[in-house]
Formats: sequence, C-alpha cells, structure tokens
Amino acid sequence: MQVDKLSGHLVVFEPSGRRGRVPHNATLLDAARELGEDIESVCGGKLVCGKCIIQIDKVLSARHGIKSAGKSLSSPTKKELSVLKARGLDNSFRLACHARVLGDVAVFVPETSRMAKQVIRKASIKRPVKLKPAVRKYYVEVPPGSLKDPLGDADRLTARLNREFGLANLKIDYDVLGSLPPILYESGGKVTATVWMDQRVVRVQAGFIERSYGVALDIGTTTVAAYLCDLSTGDTLATAADINPQISFGDDVISRITYAMSDLDGLGKLNHEIISCIGNLLADLVKKAGILPGNISEIVVVGNTAMHHIFLNIDPSGLGRSPFTPLISSSLNVDSDSLGLGHGKSLNVHTLPIIAGFVGADTVGVLIAEEPYKQDKMALIIDIGTNGELVFGNKKKLLCASCAMGPAFEGGNIKFGMRAAPGAIEKVEIDGKTLDLRFKVIGSDKWNTQSCAVKARGICGSGIIDALAEMVRTGIIEQGGRFNKNLSSDRLVANKEGPAFILARADETATGKDITIDINDVRSVQLAKAAMYAGARILMDKLKIGKPDKVVLAGAFGSYINKENALAIGLFPGCELKNVYSVGNAAGEGARLALLNIDKRREADDIARRIEYIELTTEPDFQKHFVKALQFPASNICRSK
Amino acid sequence: MQVDKLSGHLVVFEPSGRRGRVPHNATLLDAARELGEDIESVCGGKLVCGKCIIQIDKVLSARHGIKSAGKSLSSPTKKELSVLKARGLDNSFRLACHARVLGDVAVFVPETSRMAKQVIRKASIKRPVKLKPAVRKYYVEVPPGSLKDPLGDADRLTARLNREFGLANLKIDYDVLGSLPPILYESGGKVTATVWMDQRVVRVQAGFIERSYGVALDIGTTTVAAYLCDLSTGDTLATAADINPQISFGDDVISRITYAMSDLDGLGKLNHEIISCIGNLLADLVKKAGILPGNISEIVVVGNTAMHHIFLNIDPSGLGRSPFTPLISSSLNVDSDSLGLGHGKSLNVHTLPIIAGFVGADTVGVLIAEEPYKQDKMALIIDIGTNGELVFGNKKKLLCASCAMGPAFEGGNIKFGMRAAPGAIEKVEIDGKTLDLRFKVIGSDKWNTQSCAVKARGICGSGIIDALAEMVRTGIIEQGGRFNKNLSSDRLVANKEGPAFILARADETATGKDITIDINDVRSVQLAKAAMYAGARILMDKLKIGKPDKVVLAGAFGSYINKENALAIGLFPGCELKNVYSVGNAAGEGARLALLNIDKRREADDIARRIEYIELTTEPDFQKHFVKALQFPASNICRSK
Repeated sequence: MQVDKLSGHLVVFEPSGRRGRVPHNATLLDAARELGEDIESVCGGKLVCGKCIIQIDKVLSARHGIKSAGKSLSSPTKKELSVLKARGLDNSFRLACHARVLGDVAVFVPETSRMAKQVIRKASIKRPVKLKPAVRKYYVEVPPGSLKDPLGDADRLTARLNREFGLANLKIDYDVLGSLPPILYESGGKVTATVWMDQRVVRVQAGFIERSYGVALDIGTTTVAAYLCDLSTGDTLATAADINPQISFGDDVISRITYAMSDLDGLGKLNHEIISCIGNLLADLVKKAGILPGNISEIVVVGNTAMHHIFLNIDPSGLGRSPFTPLISSSLNVDSDSLGLGHGKSLNVHTLPIIAGFVGADTVGVLIAEEPYKQDKMALIIDIGTNGELVFGNKKKLLCASCAMGPAFEGGNIKFGMRAAPGAIEKVEIDGKTLDLRFKVIGSDKWNTQSCAVKARGICGSGIIDALAEMVRTGIIEQGGRFNKNLSSDRLVANKEGPAFILARADETATGKDITIDINDVRSVQLAKAAMYAGARILMDKLKIGKPDKVVLAGAFGSYINKENALAIGLFPGCELKNVYSVGNAAGEGARLALLNIDKRREADDIARRIEYIELTTEPDFQKHFVKALQFPASNICRSK
Repeated sequence: MQVDKLSGHLVVFEPSGRRGRVPHNATLLDAARELGEDIESVCGGKLVCGKCIIQIDKVLSARHGIKSAGKSLSSPTKKELSVLKARGLDNSFRLACHARVLGDVAVFVPETSRMAKQVIRKASIKRPVKLKPAVRKYYVEVPPGSLKDPLGDADRLTARLNREFGLANLKIDYDVLGSLPPILYESGGKVTATVWMDQRVVRVQAGFIERSYGVALDIGTTTVAAYLCDLSTGDTLATAADINPQISFGDDVISRITYAMSDLDGLGKLNHEIISCIGNLLADLVKKAGILPGNISEIVVVGNTAMHHIFLNIDPSGLGRSPFTPLISSSLNVDSDSLGLGHGKSLNVHTLPIIAGFVGADTVGVLIAEEPYKQDKMALIIDIGTNGELVFGNKKKLLCASCAMGPAFEGGNIKFGMRAAPGAIEKVEIDGKTLDLRFKVIGSDKWNTQSCAVKARGICGSGIIDALAEMVRTGIIEQGGRFNKNLSSDRLVANKEGPAFILARADETATGKDITIDINDVRSVQLAKAAMYAGARILMDKLKIGKPDKVVLAGAFGSYINKENALAIGLFPGCELKNVYSVGNAAGEGARLALLNIDKRREADDIARRIEYIELTTEPDFQKHFVKALQFPASNICRSK
C-alpha cells in the first residue's frame, strides 16, 4: 500500500494506540494490516464472518485531537447494516472490512475483534495468554476454473488465500487434494481452509466454518490427561483422563524402559498401550464436547522423557544407563498418521522439547506455564515423583536437575503404601499429648473419628507426609529418624522389622489388620525427601542463594499435600509458607498454552536449550547435603490450625 | 570468519577466478566457503572422503602477481599424504581441508573437486548442466552423549551437521529416528546423513557413504520411461521402459479420464496399474545398476496432465470437460509412502508443474530441457500425439497451446493403422513414374524389395507421414486431399469407402490381405496435421512472426518421422529443413535435469507460470487457419535423396 504522506488520513486504533496514515478510501481492515493492528477477519471482507467489528467513538477521536470536519468513514451499505443488526449492534459499530477511510479517525477495537484474545489461565497464578494457534481457519470464495484462468483448483484456492490474507508460498497437503473436488463442487467454491503455521493448507471444508479445535495431552507415568480446546476462543471445552495402561508393565519409568529394552518388541507393546489409551481419550473428548473427531486440528504433547519416547515409538534405552541420553531432545512436529493416531485424517502432533535425561517435556510444560524465566523472584519449582524434577532460578539464570526419590510418595517401598485411590489415608493429625490420632481416607469427607463409612485400605503419599510430619512434631520420631523409646502408647508397637506406629486400628481397616508406619517406612521417606532437598540445595548453592523467594509445587501430587507438613519433614528448603504454591498439573497447562499460542512453543524451544542442566550424581557436594538432609528439621514448626 | 584486511592473505581460486583475503592459518576449505568457491567436501575435513583435492600451480600464482617469499601453505601431514598417495597424486596436489593458508596463494580446483560439476546432456543440443541435487550426503562423526552434553542423539547429529557444513535449522525426519540408535551404535557415531534441500535429514547410514541415486520418471500415455542417475556424478546408470499398463483401459488420455470418472474406483484402478508398473521399473533399474533399492533418494516425475493426476491418485475429471481445469498445477513434493511407492523407506517424489489443461508436466520437462526462454531464436516446439502440444516464442515471450489431433499418427482412425511395433510399415517411397513403391517395416533393416523376412502387419505414424507425403508428391493425392482420378496403376483401387492405394500387396503382408491407404485415412491425417498447423499459426500470429527460426520435434515420435515428409504434408509451418530438430524424449530429459539440479525445478515453476497459455478453441482465427491447413502444401518440395 503506497501511502501519500500528505494526502493520506490519520487512523488511530485503541486501545493499542497504533496509529499511522493510510490512503483515502482504504478500508479500516487494510489500514489495520498496514499499521500492524491485529483485527480478526475470517472471511476477508465477504460479510460472512462478522468478526472485524469496530466501534466509532467521538470522544476517542477528540482525545487524539481529531476534528471531524466531514465524514471520516464511508456510509455503511445495506448488507453491512444487516450483519451489524443481526448481532444487535447500534450505529456506533462498523465492520472494518467495509468501512472506508475518508478522513482522520480514531476507532476502538473490542476484545472480541482482536486476533490475539486474552485467555485467563486456570492455574493458581492467573495470567493472561494470547491466542495465536498454529492452525487458523480462512474463508475464501474460489472462483471456478475458466479458459482465461487455467490454474488448477488447488492453485486458485492458494492464490485466493494469498490475495485475501497475505498467505504467500502456501503449500497444499497432498492428502487434502483428494477431498478437494467434491468440496469445491458442493460449496460452489465457498470454502474454509485450515492453514498450519501459515505454511500448509491442511484441510478444506465446504462453507464458512468458524471453529477449530485442538487437544493438549499430558502423558504421565501414572495418569494421562487430555484437554480439548476451542482454538478460536481458547476455552477448554472438555477434559478426559485415564490411568496410563502401561502401568501393567511397571509402575515407574525405569521399569518401563527396562521392559522396552529387554522384551522383544517391548517398545511396540508399550507404545500400543499408550496410543490406544489416547485414542480412547480423544473419542471421549469429542463426545463430551459434541464435535466431530475430524474437527481436531492439532495435538500438543508433554510428558517425561521416557513417556515422550514411548509415545513416539522411539527407542528410550539411552535413558536406561548413564549418561541417560535421550534419542531426541528437540521439539517435533509429527504427522498423526505416522503415530497411528488417525482420526481418519492426518493432523500435526507437536511434542515439546526435552531438556536433558529425565528432565523432559513435562518440565518444559511447567516452565512455560510458570515462566520463572520472566521473573525477578528466585523460584524453586519441584515436581515430586519416583524421579523428582527441580528447577531453580529467575530471569537471569535457570538451573534444573532430576533426582531419584524412589517410589515412597507414590506408595511404593511403604509397607501399607498405596496410590491415591479410595480407601487411602490422605490426611493424618496426631494429638501431641495422648498420641491419639484421627485420619481421613479418600472417598470420604469425614475424619475416621466421625462416622466414616469408608474403611482404610492403606496410606498414600500425602498421608505419609502428614503422618511423618506429625510423628516428628509429637516426638514419636527423633530428628535422626529413630523411634523415641521413651514414649509409650498402645499405638507404638514392635513388629519383626522393629518399632512401628499404628495409624489405623484393625477395626478401622478394610483388611481387618492394623495399618502402621514402621522404621523401614520412615527410612524410605527420609531417602526420598533428602534426595529432593539435597538437589534443591545444590541448585541454590550454584546461584549462591540461601532461601528461595517462592516454592512452586507442580504436578497433581503437589496439590494434595499439606504444604506445612511437607516443609516440616524437610521435603524442600525452608521458605515462608505463604510463598509455597501448589499449581496442579502445570505440565498439562503448559501443553495447553503451547496449543493456544505458537509463541509459547518458541519459548519452550528456547528455554529448553537455555536452562542449565545439573547432573546431581556427579556433584561433589551432593552426598554431603544428602546425608544432612536425611535428618528431620528441628521441629520448631507448630501446626497452625 | 573475521578477516583482517591488512594481515590476511590473498587466495585466488581458478578457473572461477574467485579471490579474497582470509586470515592466517585458515584452511583452504574455509577460505573457499568464505569466498563462495564451491569445493566438494563430504567428510568436512576428516580425511575420509578425499573430495576436496586442489592443485598448487606456481605459474598460476605468478599470473596473479603472487610472489611466494616463503611457504604459502602449511606442509601436508602424513595422513594427508597417504590420502593423496592412495589416489596416485603427486605433491602438487593438496586436500583443501588440511592445507592452511600461510601466505598469498593461487590454486586450481579440478573439475572433480567442484561441487557444481558439468554434466553433458544426452539430447541433441549438448548443453552443460550443473550438478545441484536436492539430496546431498554429509559425513559426520557424532560424539557420544555425555553428562556434560545432555542433548539427544539426533540433536547432536544435527548440531554437528550445522557446525561442520553450516546446515542450520535442520529437522530430522520422524522415520529416521527409529533407525538411529543401532546405526550410531554400530558405527561408533561415524555416519553419513542424507539431507534434502538442506532442510531435512531424510536418512542416516553407518560409515562413509559417497553415492546417492535418484530416478527421473516420464509417464507417457503409451510408454513409461525411467532413468536411474548417480546424483554425485550426474551419470545415468540405467534406463528402463515399459508400456503404460493403463492402455488396457483406453489408448488415449480422454478414454482414461472417462474411465476414471465413470467406473466406481476407476481412478484407483488406473492408479494401481501405473504404481505397480513404476515399482517394476524401479526394481529393474536397481538390478541393472547393482545398487540397493533403499539407496534411491528421490524421484522426479513428468507426464501429461492426465497421467500426472492419475499417478498422484487425484481426480482428473476436471480435464474431461471444458474449461479443462487440472486439480493442481503447481509442482509438488509428496512422500513416496503416500503414493504407495515404498521401497521400505520413504523418499521425496517431486512432480514438475502443469501449465494449463492438457499442457502438462511433460511440456514443462521439454521446456527446461530445451530452454527456449533463454534464446533469441523464435522456436516452435511441437509434441505430436492424440493431443498435440505446441510452444512458440523466445526469451522475450513464450506461448503454448494444446490441439486435438486425434489418434491418426498413433495408428488410430487409420484402416490399417497400428502402433510402432514389429511389422508396422515405417518408411515408404513411391516412384513418381511407375507409382510402384518400396517400404520398410519395423523389425527389419531391409526394404520389402530386398529379401525381407518380416511381413507387414499395418502402418504406423511415421509410415503414414511417408505414404501421404509421397502420394502428394507423386500426384496420387491432390492438394485438397482427393485421389487423382486421372492416374492409373494397379495399386489404385476402389473399395466400398471409395478410392484407395495399395501400400503392401497381399503376398507381402502377415494377414494375406492388401494394406491400403484409403480416402478416410487421408481425411484423418488431414484433420490431425491441420490442427497442429493451425495451432502453430495462431501462436505465430500472436507474436507477429511468419516463420519460426527453428522447429523442435519433441517426443519419441518426433525422432522416428522423416522431417522432410512431415514438412511436405504440412504438419507444421515451413522452416528450413536444417533448422528442424528431433530431440527425442525431451520431457524425460527435463525430469533428469530437475533431478540433478534444483535450480531447474525453480526454472520449471517459473516458466510454467510465465508462459502464456492460448486456448485454441476460442481463438476466432483458428477455424480459418484450420480449414486452410486441411490442404496439402503446393508440392514444390522434392525428395532430396
């Protein structure tokens, strides 16, 4: 657009404040494109989408010193008026694609007309997210072929997309070509093209189609969660989750990797499990949201390194031995067909990058959700699991590490340990004087001291933390982890492994046997929490920081635990309780953000290479910190409630 | 590379003459890259490939005014000497990757060390072609993963490729990942990566692999031809050809399109035929050349619009009705897997673009082989077939058209017409006085008047042209196409369709019946040649040119016909005989060029959009020219031999 500096008109867009001169008679949509203002327009001026609504505001013009001597915009046509009327809008509104600039003017662009909408995140710290998905829909009217325009059907489509939306050098996917003739025929050339990354036409549909959908997938070792998002609004329309069926091949990543390495086609079997699980989740999502399966346009995936590799059906055996090398750490775009994730049509599957070893795409998801690299505060972000992951730092420098915690907090290596399932003791409170206690089990709102219908079957991670913290607080366990021999209670017993403490008496349990915490259970917890603590300590030492400004507990487990008790047993370095946050499934949230905004993918690729990975096992001070951290902290922390 | 203008040394490369200053101690290979001199190097300086040999020449240095006061290059190491010795080279030769610049120097780059080798084309007009294939091989040594370098295996590979060959932003194909771990393991990280368009790693092989191969495919309506080329030398190692098996569904493109449109899964059946035919040709090629099927890295395809669409398994029905719109006219890169052309691994299949309607990728192949857009001479390029294609113009402007010639020159609509197969009369000479004649049949070197063992079965296109030209020349046929009633000969007979001329008597034929040319046959030839002539006339009129500077007969048919006789019957506008060239399968040659040099693909994309397509059926003057061209030209042309 050639702008004559003298004869052009001033156009100001609010609230962005973008301004500049445009030629007489340019449309406001052209002006917006010229001046870099992102106004939504799906149909490119065909009065079909009604997306590019703007508001004329004289006060606004006056504020910018614009005096309207005559008409500053062309009069609306009947058609434009009917579109506006159908949306219940008065005559202060116009369609940017039809309003032509006749004089200086300032206009207001409502939120709904902005291409980059603000989506409020669901996670703890609400932060707006711009909508900038990889797939976008464009409505065009493709003229029929003629003797004067001998280009192919597909070429006339891409030429239109280029002319109306500036999408140059578009390639059309081979598998789109097959469906093109009947679609063009039945629609009379009025079609909606789905374009990926402004590079490839990945789908063509008859008529004006506004919405497109994507799925964010978080493949955890235990749980697989899927979120169906509307890519035109950012809304999450449905969620679905299931147990990772690979669990029958082993509880933790190491046993899965071992299975993949040792069994003939072990990888294939594990991959088959996760692919069919995801297939079911996708079917569940589209059913819940009431959309057609074929309308999903993209999938973004996070998961730890082993889950990532097994999902991609690529060899994870490098992770099974030092130096724990992944096969690939970069983000990938893979065709769903190659992964056996067909929904009848191929779509792009984007996996977030891996940092190093076991610090995988899930941690990258947490990072782009929490954005510690944009903050001044020194944040410690931890994800508790058989492998614990740690991130420490701020916008100046970020470090990360992985530590082997063992399965204690997932119920493993704990005599009565179990997963967080109905019947698991999840909360424990001990009376300091009587050493009597009360507990809550999953599946019941009430304490066992009230009339609780659900009997205890075992104890899960959050219950273990509570029990240990309370046992330390009440002096049942000494700082070193031994049972205090000077206390007496009928809950303190001795079994063949040594001393133990009864949490649930036989009559309160489903098995009819006491549920206890014994000395071995205490040791398992000590090993787990010391590994995490020492890891955090190493990262903090590297940055010469004694105390984190905040601690972020990522992962579902982090939202279930009592933060105070976690601090009490020394799961992580001390920090004021008010600065300890549980952010839930931040990895899944990261996947959702990357699905909604391609800039977040670039951010992910960038941070995955910028963050420094610290291999804890080779750190000289790790053993020293670890041994020290086996101790329970001096119990100066009182229960606040 | 930072070059100190004062302290750097002058390096001159010959014969290109590229020159510039490089820092002290830079390798000649680095100097070449810096100065834009393309020196081949597959291993990037690991003394594995021996590709970057250059020659020191004092005379050369002197010519550039370089006086060597001391040593201008570092001394060769033992290893370098052993590589040179193994190749029988004396001490005037060096490896550019190991020779370091210590002073001003001029070096000679032998042909074999240049990245862009000159390949002499096989076609009539020999023209050198640069080697610049889409797939290239790079040898790298990938260091093992370590705790200090936690990047994934694939990422360390691409990082090396970037560091050593400047291949930034490389993506690794998903299907390469699966094979990577065992290859890296067995080779100790010493691998050769095959890279497509400097963008994607499409294959990784253990060890140093020098050669890669590609196939050029010309899918004709009648014949499919395949050429296996060595992409590192440009040589054609093997050729294979077969009858297009779709022929059982109809001889010409229209009948194939009709079948694809009318039969349930007609397209699928036609596609299946051509894909299995190509599969056989590929198997034949690799067998002949003695290479592994998996070593083919790319396939480039030409063919007319219908063959192109059916090969891609996309709907050709737009071609079956006016305005004859293709489904896609752009060039495509499609994965061989999608096309069912698997050789166990996926490879890129590149199709040249289509111009318009029936002027397809085969004509584009002819164009990039003949390059009329680079020449001053006004060239008329014709490809004779049921649909004839015409190109006319020069570097200023090029026009093209397609004309319906009917099947006369392929033996169709001719009473005794047949394809060019054994037994077909291919040459005819008539004695002007006696009206006696002699003929040659395919399958015999001798004339029928000598003792010829092969009996005539019919007459093929070149025989028809000869017969008609001779019948006109001897006055058997008048200018308007009627038989001259005033002549008498026992060869001139009357059958129920009207007058006829006996070419082969019953005792000379395999059927025991006379082979004749009758009045209907003459009409068929008149219609065919008039269509081609009138088309050419229209294009010439558009450019206001009365006579082409040269006529190029493209296609296999063009090489079989007697050019003089073709002129005599008026198949194309008059031109001096010496300026009429047969260039054989120029379409296939174009495919080969596009396989060997990606610049030719850009040239193809460019010319396909720049050339102007003229729809002859809507040209007002076409009918006038056509009617006039039905006449045979005044027979002032005498047989020269």
